[in-house]
Amino acid sequence: MDRSNSVNRREGHTTNGTKKTQEELLVQEEEQEVLSVERIFESKQVPSWQSQLTLRAFFVSLILGILFTFIVMKLNLTTGIIPSLNVSAGLLGFFFVKTWTKFLDKSGFLKQPFTRQENTVIQTCVVASSGIAFSGGFGSYLFGMSEAIAKQSTEANAADNVKNPSLGWMTTFLFVVSFLGLFSVVPLRKIMIIDFKLIYPSGTATAHLINSFHTPQGAKLAKKQVKALGKFFTFSFLWGFFQWFFTGGDNCGFGSFPTFGLKAFENRFYFDFSATYVGVGMICPYLINVSLLVGGILSWGIMWPLIEDRKGHWYPADQSPSSLHGIQGYRVFIAIAMILGDGLYNFIKVLGRTLYGIYCQFREKKTGSVLPVGARASPAEASLSYDDQIRTELFLKDQIPTWVAIVGYVSIAIISTITLPHIFHQLNWYYIVVIYIFAPVLAFCNAYGCGLTDWSLASTYGKLAIFTIGAWAGASHGGVLAGLAACGVMMNIATTASDLTQDFKTGYMTLASPRSMFISQIIGTAMGCVISPCVFWLFYKAFHDLGVPGSEYPAPYALVYRNMSILGVEGFSALPKNCLTLCYIFFIGAIAINALRDALGKNKAKYIPLPMAMAIPFYLGSYFVIDMCLGSLILFIWTKINKAKADAFGPAVASGLICGDGIWTLPSSILTLSGVNPPICMKFLSRKDNIRVDKLMKH
Amino acid sequence: MDRSNSVNRREGHTTNGTKKTQEELLVQEEEQEVLSVERIFESKQVPSWQSQLTLRAFFVSLILGILFTFIVMKLNLTTGIIPSLNVSAGLLGFFFVKTWTKFLDKSGFLKQPFTRQENTVIQTCVVASSGIAFSGGFGSYLFGMSEAIAKQSTEANAADNVKNPSLGWMTTFLFVVSFLGLFSVVPLRKIMIIDFKLIYPSGTATAHLINSFHTPQGAKLAKKQVKALGKFFTFSFLWGFFQWFFTGGDNCGFGSFPTFGLKAFENRFYFDFSATYVGVGMICPYLINVSLLVGGILSWGIMWPLIEDRKGHWYPADQSPSSLHGIQGYRVFIAIAMILGDGLYNFIKVLGRTLYGIYCQFREKKTGSVLPVGARASPAEASLSYDDQIRTELFLKDQIPTWVAIVGYVSIAIISTITLPHIFHQLNWYYIVVIYIFAPVLAFCNAYGCGLTDWSLASTYGKLAIFTIGAWAGASHGGVLAGLAACGVMMNIATTASDLTQDFKTGYMTLASPRSMFISQIIGTAMGCVISPCVFWLFYKAFHDLGVPGSEYPAPYALVYRNMSILGVEGFSALPKNCLTLCYIFFIGAIAINALRDALGKNKAKYIPLPMAMAIPFYLGSYFVIDMCLGSLILFIWTKINKAKADAFGPAVASGLICGDGIWTLPSSILTLSGVNPPICMKFLSRKDNIRVDKLMKH
Repeated sequence: MDRSNSVNRREGHTTNGTKKTQEELLVQEEEQEVLSVERIFESKQVPSWQSQLTLRAFFVSLILGILFTFIVMKLNLTTGIIPSLNVSAGLLGFFFVKTWTKFLDKSGFLKQPFTRQENTVIQTCVVASSGIAFSGGFGSYLFGMSEAIAKQSTEANAADNVKNPSLGWMTTFLFVVSFLGLFSVVPLRKIMIIDFKLIYPSGTATAHLINSFHTPQGAKLAKKQVKALGKFFTFSFLWGFFQWFFTGGDNCGFGSFPTFGLKAFENRFYFDFSATYVGVGMICPYLINVSLLVGGILSWGIMWPLIEDRKGHWYPADQSPSSLHGIQGYRVFIAIAMILGDGLYNFIKVLGRTLYGIYCQFREKKTGSVLPVGARASPAEASLSYDDQIRTELFLKDQIPTWVAIVGYVSIAIISTITLPHIFHQLNWYYIVVIYIFAPVLAFCNAYGCGLTDWSLASTYGKLAIFTIGAWAGASHGGVLAGLAACGVMMNIATTASDLTQDFKTGYMTLASPRSMFISQIIGTAMGCVISPCVFWLFYKAFHDLGVPGSEYPAPYALVYRNMSILGVEGFSALPKNCLTLCYIFFIGAIAINALRDALGKNKAKYIPLPMAMAIPFYLGSYFVIDMCLGSLILFIWTKINKAKADAFGPAVASGLICGDGIWTLPSSILTLSGVNPPICMKFLSRKDNIRVDKLMKH
Repeated sequence: MDRSNSVNRREGHTTNGTKKTQEELLVQEEEQEVLSVERIFESKQVPSWQSQLTLRAFFVSLILGILFTFIVMKLNLTTGIIPSLNVSAGLLGFFFVKTWTKFLDKSGFLKQPFTRQENTVIQTCVVASSGIAFSGGFGSYLFGMSEAIAKQSTEANAADNVKNPSLGWMTTFLFVVSFLGLFSVVPLRKIMIIDFKLIYPSGTATAHLINSFHTPQGAKLAKKQVKALGKFFTFSFLWGFFQWFFTGGDNCGFGSFPTFGLKAFENRFYFDFSATYVGVGMICPYLINVSLLVGGILSWGIMWPLIEDRKGHWYPADQSPSSLHGIQGYRVFIAIAMILGDGLYNFIKVLGRTLYGIYCQFREKKTGSVLPVGARASPAEASLSYDDQIRTELFLKDQIPTWVAIVGYVSIAIISTITLPHIFHQLNWYYIVVIYIFAPVLAFCNAYGCGLTDWSLASTYGKLAIFTIGAWAGASHGGVLAGLAACGVMMNIATTASDLTQDFKTGYMTLASPRSMFISQIIGTAMGCVISPCVFWLFYKAFHDLGVPGSEYPAPYALVYRNMSILGVEGFSALPKNCLTLCYIFFIGAIAINALRDALGKNKAKYIPLPMAMAIPFYLGSYFVIDMCLGSLILFIWTKINKAKADAFGPAVASGLICGDGIWTLPSSILTLSGVNPPICMKFLSRKDNIRVDKLMKH
């Protein structure tokens, strides 16, 4: 509960002052007026949760869902790199419905005005539906099962380890696994957003954007904020556009700028000029940024170079840098161990507190209160800002009873456990039961990590499933396919958990009812389960060389996932030397650090980094950490110069930066899909290489 | 007189207002306090011109002169690209003397405090002495005469066209040609600085820097300005440092950033991230920036592409892009024609006015007044700011009588005319006389152009001399050598004219006496005439492969100049087709535009571009114009947001940008000289080339 220093929490301090100069009071007053979004929206009534769910909203969601699915699917099959489309969904949803309502308004037919809650509902629905195009694994695990991919590898080509795509089983598979995540999100929602007050930078930014669209006329200070958001939105968008021109090839452009030299670049220490992560750094508390930096330095600065020195001893020297048998194995599994340690600690802590709370409630024979433990009157409660009060109140009003979540989860798990072995006979029913027992912990971990740092590590959890279930099944029993299928189950749950909790944060900040959002997510997921396989099927039938390297649609990650699964069936023995020992150390370390933080109390804990945040750069590298620290530094200097202004405009600027870059992904994806490639490559060569290149260019 | 909208002139407007709100008055008051540098320095007495010339100043100048000569000489012989070292001279001079006087002050031996005038004297002396290392042509025309260079070319290798370096003739040559420029500067000084109020961006920036060093304690607003200067100085220096790392090869780094695409880059339209020119753009009036842009678009945007379309018809298709027989010929000669047209018009105008003024004086029988025509009580005089009043007064106090200048010029010209044919027997005495008759016009052109745009085009005037004198002498009579020698004479005059008028601007703004500066320049020039040949001789004797391509000291421009001279002896027939016709058109056009400007009057003239400024991008390209326009745009927006602040801090920020980058040239030169090369090349490749390069890198 006291773990995260949310930006919103800062406001709490203003009421504690006793002796204040007039200037301070003035600043405070202005600050409060500026910071309270909900005061501005006070005049606007929040519609009931039923009326937030309009037909037009779902119609627009369907259209956008199909559009985004096409985009994501084509990216899946070409580069395999999928940008986050959250912001685009919010923005396009707004423009579609706004145009429609304006038109109706002029004709006099408008019955229901367009509210920010409705906008959030659309955004949630689109994210849920297009998210399946990614988590469905059409470019990774699912397509990795096919013959086209299997025959590219020399191992595990037997019929037992191959399953070709077909519209029928894909749709069924998605339907039985995709809804599970949804129900596990329901209890998480309260813990993450109300109790932990996690940031969810993208969700917060989207909420700022949606709020800014719907700001009522006449709010002078809000207008200024909207203007600031708009300015940085434009800047960030144009910057993304400008950068694009210089990315005509691999390792080209500002994203590969060796800001601190080539040696540092090799160890992934560089500033990659991403406006998104500068914005994220501005929204995230200092502790997160510092934790990330500490993690980055510890791993890429110290540990990996040390391990690489033992190349040939600790792991075979002939392994490629991306092989899990080699250095990459250490990176991925140590990161997972640390994340799991942190996640498990917190999961158990929350569980313990909840059980204790229920016990207390039971003893006091209070039956009326439905408030969860975290939202109950704690000392922090008294100092909640007006915004947080309003938002918490509305967020907790339309409850989804916990029994619905539990019943839903269990019944879908049962259906799934029965159905899945029929689809993949290699996947025994008890594997699935095991997955579903551990899934909530992993969903918790992913939602929690994403809330802290904006990174969803769903594919990492997927890899974990490949290794555990694959090894369990063993090579002889179709373990490769079992691993890939397990990966799918896990990825779906983890992705849904982080994406939808992110959406709930947006909903929290826009006063959308959790109930309407939950229904919107169910509808969106159902849409996605139908749209995605259909779109993939279209590609699969239209292009016969799908997945062939060098072709138009090479689907690069399909082979990567299959190879991982082939490795996975060898079990823990496949891991490089000492990797498992290190994993234990970091797993225990993460728990120890958490325990230390809790033991020290809130005041001292803020100097101790968070293991969850530390682990993320372990295998990604520190480039985005540099961006975030820059954002943090900017905010820090701004706060020193003018605290009131920084507090009022910081989130708007950060949201502008995140959203502008986010929207740019849409035209950029469309450019890629339509075959328009950037004209220039900004390349960084060592002086020695440059001489070779210059020689070549002269010929 | 009304041609240039100097930044200082803006201040004049504040006294004209009648009805002003209180806020305006407040702004105005602050503005005046901020803008008046001389009020801050009021408490400090200006020493007499004799006491500005101290022994310690010349001692420091000698040491810095030798240091800079070494740097320039080595750059001459390696890359051939010489940065401007003005700012470094001012800064290092300050630190040397300040340390010395502080030390003496503490020991109680200090007799004379260190003043900004003395600082300017040092700066002037160092610039005069190290300037000769460049204008002496040790990397260009002078070394181009030698056998080492001659044998690299197939033509004109006869003994008649070769002259090997020797300490004796080089020193003599420099002594007889270098002082001429000095005397031609004396009358220019008044016209350029007092009458035309030209900007001389580098000189102005150096003056701001020197003033900031010597700002008396307690001046609050001045301190803010110094702080702004310091901040942008640091930024600009660090930016230069950062850029350096990415320049490990030809066409690498931010200086070759195809900001507007590769096609625009080929036509030299790009933003080259140079802090210097952004600063220069902030100091230069809008009209100059617009003129440059118009010129850049007219030439590289329209004319050159059109001419290139006629490749094979207008000029031989097999010519290299840098050959004067080809497209480069059009660029250079059309630019010269335009500059000459503008220069001649203004020269004649000034001459006419001066003669008319003398006539008036004579008729009115006023003999006491020695004020030159431009400084006499004109309507503008009344609205001169306090700073300008003080500065003009002091600038005109210590006169150097015009007869001294004329007698000096004529007598040195006579000595030179007698001596030079003894050094170069190919150079007839009447060639020299002709050069010396036209030299003042060209010196005027160069000083004027430099004052407007900060570009010294001395080498362009040198090329003009190569073509005219070389053609006149003809190939059979050692015309190649005659051309090179004439180039030397011309370059020395033109360089001196621009460099020293620039220094006079610095002197004007730091209240240094023109008389002490003149003497400092004489001493500096004399130093340079001895130091430079000695340093060159050292290199020449130490490295036997001097001038050999691919060696450590290839002296690339020596061959370029020799080849130009070989072309030049062919006369006008060597120019590509229609080039001469176009030159006539632009020469007349420049005169016509000037006449139009004068005819329209001051108010309307500000919408008509200046031909001199338009001509400069004609052959340099528009990259620095983009920088300058950006600077201009920044200032424009700043002025719109907060005029008072922009007026007060604009020059400080601009000076900081110019000086920081300027100082960086010193460590950067030292790095180059000590063989430390930048580690990374930031290269810009088209997508097609990138694919080739990627293939190469994989092998």
